[in-house]
Amino acid sequence: MINHLISNDTIAAVATAPGQGAIAVIRLSGPEAIAITNSVFKGKDLRQQASHTIHFGTIRESDRVLDEVLVSLFVAPHSYTKENVVEISCHGSDYIVQQIMQLLLKKGARLANAGEFTKRAFLNGQFDLAQAEAVADLIASDSALSHEVAIKQMRGGFSQEIKRLRGELVHFASMIELELDFGEEDVEFADREQLRTLILNIQRIIRELLKSFELGNVIKNGVPTVIVGKPNAGKSTLLNQLLNEEKAIVSDVPGTTRDFIEDEINIEGITFRFIDTAGLRETTDKVEAIGVERTLQKLSQSSLIIYLFDVLSTTPEEVVEELEKLNPKNLPLLPVANKIDEATSEVLAAFDSIEGLVQISAAEGANMEALKQALIEKVNLGRLNTRQQTIVTNLRHVDSLNKTYAALDDVLNGLGMSGDLVAADIRRALYSLGEITGEITTDDLLDNIFTKFCIGK
Amino acid sequence: MINHLISNDTIAAVATAPGQGAIAVIRLSGPEAIAITNSVFKGKDLRQQASHTIHFGTIRESDRVLDEVLVSLFVAPHSYTKENVVEISCHGSDYIVQQIMQLLLKKGARLANAGEFTKRAFLNGQFDLAQAEAVADLIASDSALSHEVAIKQMRGGFSQEIKRLRGELVHFASMIELELDFGEEDVEFADREQLRTLILNIQRIIRELLKSFELGNVIKNGVPTVIVGKPNAGKSTLLNQLLNEEKAIVSDVPGTTRDFIEDEINIEGITFRFIDTAGLRETTDKVEAIGVERTLQKLSQSSLIIYLFDVLSTTPEEVVEELEKLNPKNLPLLPVANKIDEATSEVLAAFDSIEGLVQISAAEGANMEALKQALIEKVNLGRLNTRQQTIVTNLRHVDSLNKTYAALDDVLNGLGMSGDLVAADIRRALYSLGEITGEITTDDLLDNIFTKFCIGK
Repeated sequence: MINHLISNDTIAAVATAPGQGAIAVIRLSGPEAIAITNSVFKGKDLRQQASHTIHFGTIRESDRVLDEVLVSLFVAPHSYTKENVVEISCHGSDYIVQQIMQLLLKKGARLANAGEFTKRAFLNGQFDLAQAEAVADLIASDSALSHEVAIKQMRGGFSQEIKRLRGELVHFASMIELELDFGEEDVEFADREQLRTLILNIQRIIRELLKSFELGNVIKNGVPTVIVGKPNAGKSTLLNQLLNEEKAIVSDVPGTTRDFIEDEINIEGITFRFIDTAGLRETTDKVEAIGVERTLQKLSQSSLIIYLFDVLSTTPEEVVEELEKLNPKNLPLLPVANKIDEATSEVLAAFDSIEGLVQISAAEGANMEALKQALIEKVNLGRLNTRQQTIVTNLRHVDSLNKTYAALDDVLNGLGMSGDLVAADIRRALYSLGEITGEITTDDLLDNIFTKFCIGK
Repeated sequence: MINHLISNDTIAAVATAPGQGAIAVIRLSGPEAIAITNSVFKGKDLRQQASHTIHFGTIRESDRVLDEVLVSLFVAPHSYTKENVVEISCHGSDYIVQQIMQLLLKKGARLANAGEFTKRAFLNGQFDLAQAEAVADLIASDSALSHEVAIKQMRGGFSQEIKRLRGELVHFASMIELELDFGEEDVEFADREQLRTLILNIQRIIRELLKSFELGNVIKNGVPTVIVGKPNAGKSTLLNQLLNEEKAIVSDVPGTTRDFIEDEINIEGITFRFIDTAGLRETTDKVEAIGVERTLQKLSQSSLIIYLFDVLSTTPEEVVEELEKLNPKNLPLLPVANKIDEATSEVLAAFDSIEGLVQISAAEGANMEALKQALIEKVNLGRLNTRQQTIVTNLRHVDSLNKTYAALDDVLNGLGMSGDLVAADIRRALYSLGEITGEITTDDLLDNIFTKFCIGK
C-alpha cells in the first residue's frame, strides 16, 4: 500500500543533544553508511565486520586525527532503519562533532532531515505510523504517565487495537464486494445483522478512544492551571511551596538537570502547568481596578482554576460571590483557604459550607497532600484506568477516528440500500482507520508528521 | 609507583549532554557493570555475550517498560576504564535517563563522580596523567588549534617527550647510585661531562616547552581582546562584521549550534574573545565624562587592544595621543582606522605615519582580511610551528617543568660535589617530571585534576 520511493542516499546527523558531554553520537543510515565511515576511519576494515559489533579507531581527515572514536555497526536489515546504520561515538565537543559531520558530508553523506531516520524505519516496515509518532512523544515525555502512554503506543498497543477493528471491517468489505461481483443474482454473503452489530461495537470502541483523548491530552500536554485570588491571598507562596516539593523529588539524581522546567509540578504522573503566572499575578494584583472581566479573559487559556483566599481577611460570603463570578468559565474550580495556621477554629468553621474547600497553610506547607489529591480529582481522571486502557494522545488520530465514526454512521444508514453504497462507506471507514497506522499515507501526511521530529531521530 | 586502591564498586552516569536528543547514553563501569545492567534488561543474557557487541532489548522496572534500548558491552580489560563497561543507548529524554539512572542506582550502581571514568582509566594504566588531562581539553576544544594540541597530547605526544627526558636522567641517576654503592672506592661510573651536556640539553628543551605555553595558553583559552574608541568610531559595527563572517562559516552544518558562543571569533584557529564588551561599550560611550583612567582599568582583563577611530572625525595627532595613553598597559595594541570608504585619499594619507595602522570600513566589510592578519601577527605566534612542536597548555605542567628546571640547576651546580647530593638533585628533577605524566601522584593531585571533568567522563 505504501507507495514511496525509498531513497538510495546515505544520511547523517548528530543523534545526541548539543553541548558538552563525555561523548556525542553521530548516526549514519543508508547503503553507503559503512563504506563512508570506513573511508575516514583508521582501524579494522569496517566493511568486513559483523553486525552489532563495536570497533575502536580514529577518524582522520588526510593525516589529521579528528578524534579517537568507537564505531558501532548495524548491517541491513538488522538496524533501526533496516538500512546499514553506523553510530560514531566521539568525544562530546560541538567542535569535534561539527568537524566529523563536515567530513562525512564531504565523503558523500547527506545531512538528514528532521525525523528522517524514523521515517525510513517506517517506510521500511520497522513499525507503523502510530508507533513512529510515539517515538517523538517518548523523547518529549516528562512525566510517568506521558512516558507510559508513549511507550505503550511505541510498542504497538494502540496500533493493535486499530488493526483489530480494521481487520474485522475488511472481512465484511470483502464479503460485500463479493456480492457485487455476482451482480444481478441478489445473493447476500455478508449478514447485514452481523455487520450492524460489528459496526455498533466498533463505534462504541471509537467513542471510548475519543473519550480517552481528554485524558491523553492532559497526560501529554499537562493541565494548564491558574491560581487566582487577591494580592494578599498567598499565590506566590503556594506556587513556591508546590514547586519546591517537586524540586526536592526530582533532584535525587544530580546531573539530570530539570532546570528548564519552570512553574510546572507533577502530581501522580500528571503535569500541572501554571500558565502565564507572571502576567496573571500582575492582573490580579489590580483586580479591583480593572474588574473581574479581564481576569476571566486571562483564564480562558487554562483548564483548571485554583481560587485561593486568605481566611483572615475574607468572609464566606465573599468566597461564594467570587466562586460564582468564576463559574461562568465552566472550568473545574478548586476553592482553597490559605493561612489556616493563623486562624481560630471558629473562623475556619465559618467556611464549612463551601463545597470541596481545601484548607491549607502555604507558608507552613500544611495540608499540601490534601491539596494535591484535590487537584488530581478535579481533572477527573479517576474513572480511567491508564494501565489497562488504550489512550489516544494525538490530535491526528482523533481526527481520523472521527472520520471513521462518521463513515460507519453512513454504513449503518445505508444497510438497507444497494451493496455498492455500503461497500464505498466501509472503504471510507477503512481508509480513515488506515491513516492512523500508516497503511494509508500521503507524502504530505508523512512530511507533516516527521518534520516535527528533531534532526538525528 | 601508583599506590591507590582501585575501588571495587560500579559507577554509573549519563555520558551525553543533557536535554532532548534522538538518543542519550548512560555508562557504567566496574566489576558489576554487566550484572547490574542484566538485572534490569530483558533480552539476551548479557553476562554470556562477547566484548564489543551490541544487544537490543528493554529496560524494565518490574513489569514497567522504561525504554527500548541498545546495550553495548565492553568486557574487562578491553574498555576505556579497563573494567567491565556497559553503555546503554536509550531515547534522549531527560525523564527516561533519570528513570533508568535511578533504577541502576537502586540495583547497586553508584553515581560516578566528576571525571571518575577517566580517573579509573588512568589508575588502571590505560594512559598517563597528561593524556587523561587532554581528554578534558579535547571536550572543551572549540577551535582547530586547541583541538589539534589536545588530541596530540591525548595521543601521547607530550608524554613521550617528557618520558624520553626522564629516561635519560634515570640512566644517570642509576649510574650515580651505583657509585654510592661502591662507597669509599672513588669510582665514577657516570661521566660528569656527559651528564652536564645531557642536563643542558634537557634544560634547553624545557625552556622551549615553557616558551610554548605562551602560545598554548592562547590556543586553549583564546585571546581576551577589547575594542576601544569613541562612541562614533564604529565599534559595534566592526564587532558585528567580524562575528557575522564567523557565523557564515560555522553554520555550514545546521544542527550543530554554536549559539552559546557570543562575541568570539576564530582566526586561523586562534580564538579572540571580546571580553565584557557590553560593559565596555557603555564605559567607552561615556569616555569623555569618566576619563581614560577607568577605561584603562577595564583593559586590565585583556591581552590585546584594538584602538578604533573614525578617519573623518579624528586627526592623526589625536590618534598618536590616544595610542600613548593606551601604551602604559604594555599590551599589544593595534590601531585601526574606520570609515575609509567615506574618506578622500588626502585624508587617508595624513595617517600614513602611524605605525602598523590598518585601514578598514567596518560597514562595507572592506579590508577585513588585512585586519585579521594584523590581529594574528599581534599575538605573535608566527615564530612557532604548531604542527611540529610540542605545546604546553596546562599550568600544572608549567609548574612541574619549572621545578624540574630548578632541580637541574642544582644538579649542575653540584656536579663537582659528592655523588649523593647529585643523586638527590636528580631524583628531585625526576620527581617533578614524573608528576606531569602521573608516574608520581598524590590523591590531592588526582582529585584536583579530575574534579574539573564533567560527570560521565
